[in-house]
Amino acid sequence: MTDQPSINIYRKKALVNFEGKDFLGQIGIDSRIFNTLNNGGISVGVISQQAIENGVSVLVDEKDAEAAVTLLSKEFKHEKNAGIVSNIYSIDNLCVLGFVSEQNTKILSELQRNKIFPLLLSQASSTGRVNIVVTDNQTEITQNIIETEIFGKPKVVHLALIGHGNVGSTLIEQILDSAYDILTRKRIDLKIIAISNSKKMVLNKSGFRSDWRQKINYSNTETNIQDIIHYAKDHNLENLVLVDNTASKDFVKNYTEFVDNGFDIVSSNKIFNTSSISDYRDFRNILAKNNKKYLYETNVGAGLPLIDTIKLLHLSGENITRIKGVFSGTLSYVFNQFSVRDEKFSSIVKEAMNKGFTEPDPREDLSGNDVARKLLILARELDLVNEFEDINIKNLVTEPLLPISKDEFLSRIEELDEVFQKTKDDQEPNHVLRYVGDLHGDLQKDKGELDVKLISVPANSALGQLKGSDSIFEIYTESYGENPIVIMGAGAGAKVTARGVFGDILRLSETK
Amino acid sequence: MTDQPSINIYRKKALVNFEGKDFLGQIGIDSRIFNTLNNGGISVGVISQQAIENGVSVLVDEKDAEAAVTLLSKEFKHEKNAGIVSNIYSIDNLCVLGFVSEQNTKILSELQRNKIFPLLLSQASSTGRVNIVVTDNQTEITQNIIETEIFGKPKVVHLALIGHGNVGSTLIEQILDSAYDILTRKRIDLKIIAISNSKKMVLNKSGFRSDWRQKINYSNTETNIQDIIHYAKDHNLENLVLVDNTASKDFVKNYTEFVDNGFDIVSSNKIFNTSSISDYRDFRNILAKNNKKYLYETNVGAGLPLIDTIKLLHLSGENITRIKGVFSGTLSYVFNQFSVRDEKFSSIVKEAMNKGFTEPDPREDLSGNDVARKLLILARELDLVNEFEDINIKNLVTEPLLPISKDEFLSRIEELDEVFQKTKDDQEPNHVLRYVGDLHGDLQKDKGELDVKLISVPANSALGQLKGSDSIFEIYTESYGENPIVIMGAGAGAKVTARGVFGDILRLSETK
Repeated sequence: MTDQPSINIYRKKALVNFEGKDFLGQIGIDSRIFNTLNNGGISVGVISQQAIENGVSVLVDEKDAEAAVTLLSKEFKHEKNAGIVSNIYSIDNLCVLGFVSEQNTKILSELQRNKIFPLLLSQASSTGRVNIVVTDNQTEITQNIIETEIFGKPKVVHLALIGHGNVGSTLIEQILDSAYDILTRKRIDLKIIAISNSKKMVLNKSGFRSDWRQKINYSNTETNIQDIIHYAKDHNLENLVLVDNTASKDFVKNYTEFVDNGFDIVSSNKIFNTSSISDYRDFRNILAKNNKKYLYETNVGAGLPLIDTIKLLHLSGENITRIKGVFSGTLSYVFNQFSVRDEKFSSIVKEAMNKGFTEPDPREDLSGNDVARKLLILARELDLVNEFEDINIKNLVTEPLLPISKDEFLSRIEELDEVFQKTKDDQEPNHVLRYVGDLHGDLQKDKGELDVKLISVPANSALGQLKGSDSIFEIYTESYGENPIVIMGAGAGAKVTARGVFGDILRLSETK
Repeated sequence: MTDQPSINIYRKKALVNFEGKDFLGQIGIDSRIFNTLNNGGISVGVISQQAIENGVSVLVDEKDAEAAVTLLSKEFKHEKNAGIVSNIYSIDNLCVLGFVSEQNTKILSELQRNKIFPLLLSQASSTGRVNIVVTDNQTEITQNIIETEIFGKPKVVHLALIGHGNVGSTLIEQILDSAYDILTRKRIDLKIIAISNSKKMVLNKSGFRSDWRQKINYSNTETNIQDIIHYAKDHNLENLVLVDNTASKDFVKNYTEFVDNGFDIVSSNKIFNTSSISDYRDFRNILAKNNKKYLYETNVGAGLPLIDTIKLLHLSGENITRIKGVFSGTLSYVFNQFSVRDEKFSSIVKEAMNKGFTEPDPREDLSGNDVARKLLILARELDLVNEFEDINIKNLVTEPLLPISKDEFLSRIEELDEVFQKTKDDQEPNHVLRYVGDLHGDLQKDKGELDVKLISVPANSALGQLKGSDSIFEIYTESYGENPIVIMGAGAGAKVTARGVFGDILRLSETK
């Protein structure tokens, strides 16, 4: 053997397992096994006592396995009857990978993360030599992982992207644009192996390229979650990340299955984090059990560094006393404009509609539910056990306009003008209207107070200074005192949301 | 054996290593080793062929080791002379730890991170059984790590804190306050095992408690970096983190040695990151080689989530086009006040001095060097190779006041008033003065433009709205367009800086 790193691969091997009680110190058992096999003309490879007193595994050529079991069963007939030897059997169709590396433990840890558990492993640190026995169909992925570590082959991260609407498609383009840079700078090879919408999907283990849109458009494959999971499994793909850029209530039900099958999750979809607190916590336990991560920085404030900041402050014992801000880009625009322009509320809403800032039915924005969901997600980061129903939401749509169709609503939207004009006129001088989320109360208790409401603030305050469709978040804590941490900027939009999702993917990739 | 997890520990063992060439398939070699030892009355334990063709290790009682080597040398005399068997020798003073766990790979990876490389390891995944052979003095730490994983024993993170001034002592109190919470919620046991100032230090592997201040005050132990490293080594402490809360130019020279000895580093000290770009990059390579992390979120903006945000945006391919802001809490206060109050510049500076906002010699703040250092650190996060000398710094101290003593400066500080009053008066209406750092230019090139300067901005702009001694950072990127990401809040102060350092410690602890 030379000092050059290389992997020796021996296929068509079998393990003969010899199980029994209290082998340690029983002089002669091991020798008898060996002699029996040698006398039978069977060549013996790696040998390992499984636990200090519980058995021996012997590696033989697959063709000799049956003979080995027969020979040993005969030799140890007496001990078998006496119950000292409990079982002698062989496992066929195995492969041995032998290599020398200083990265042994890293390799083993990578293998485990990818759900490869060698049947047998022997390692001697003095020489850095390791032998791993795996089932034959795991040979390729095992070899890949070993080569990645030994030869510094880039770490491949396989992404399954669900949803390719605004955010999803922007993310795909961003990933394709930056993939080469990330490969060279971080030795991380991001491969998009699945793209799916609610109807169709495409799979490609080599990773999609700039023609991904044609591929999905011309795909005839129906979307099937199971197929994505099996595809990853069948092709032994490692470092799996599910990326959910849908707003689907149904899709999040699959998260658990993905996690159980070795996927980490990155999501811009808020639905899961606003489900019942018991579902929320159960899923955290499943993640912990599987040693998987679930990142969702874009759930609130898109790419703004909000959730990670709050998480760290909270965990480091900083007493967060209040979180307040303008959480909705749409309603930011509406009230930033309405407050300073001499126009009807309905005109401003229509303007926002025409700019594509609102949902197709603007009542979805005006209902305050989206702001409420974001507020709930932040509250839960502080370990508060609030439910969605606990939130006091000021619905900006008046009662009569609630039960009607979208078209009727749009034709009667002027009915909103009177009440908002009055609210605007009733303000103190130099004040402006803002639609805010406000988490307050004694946040050391189980539940906090969650309000979603329209307020009037001084025009020269931080909230009052907000521009365009920006979001703003004020985080009040004990150490920061009266002046909160303020994080402000575009809190919505495909580009910045996609970039935030990308950030989560990179966070994940770096810890892999 | 029961199904209960437990660790079997066998001490006073020895490994007999039998090395040679091309053992694979040589029928009879293993048997001869066994028979020889058995016939000599030597009980044989774990056996493992080191690599598929390179040797055999046999575990024996330490007392039998010498006899085993003698017996085998005699038996294989012929092969030794022929060069087939290259070496037969024993390693004494070993310990075997045998256990059953589903966390095997995690355990092995933890061991490696703590620089424990088992001499021999055998593992069978079907049963989850593992035997690890380590040198006897590693028994305790190995057992600790295994128990941590098997029994969910908390992961102990050992902190060596350098510097216990304002930030350092606040951090110690914060850690002591939150330790129990973090232990129960995250299963992370933070132990402060070393506290040191420039003269004295104290060590305690069990972790310091609320009486830490007496301990360091009454310590007679001179500070010695080597002693800290040796202490950690001698007591086999795992998960080591060096926390530098000094501003020492000399201390940062020890970073490399700490990293080489298994420490991750968290630092509020800016010095290292503003050294020459070659030192900066060399150290990153050393970190990568040792698989260690270096976190310094508090280098800029104290606890504000600035560096992590910029890092992720940059890595995800977001084109950051400009970073601009008020980086100094001291100069924020000075110009926030001077801009709106009808008082002399020197009076405001003296007021800031009396509030403890400035360095003892306020020229250190007024020089702009601190702002420049922060700007340089941000620039380097964008992979720019700027040096400190590249920065255009507007020193606020006029030429004649530079070379004089601190006392003389303070007696002549009114000489600054005329120039600043003129600057203030020359502004357009409704404008205010701000001392800013500004990173701009074509940031896709090797170097950016770094300016530290006094500017006049509209009072109602984000910069103009700044209050108290807050910092503000505007991050302009391609996706965020004209409206930057704005991060604002207390960018200085012991409490928020300590909390930021604490955040870095937790970031590190969670990835361990």
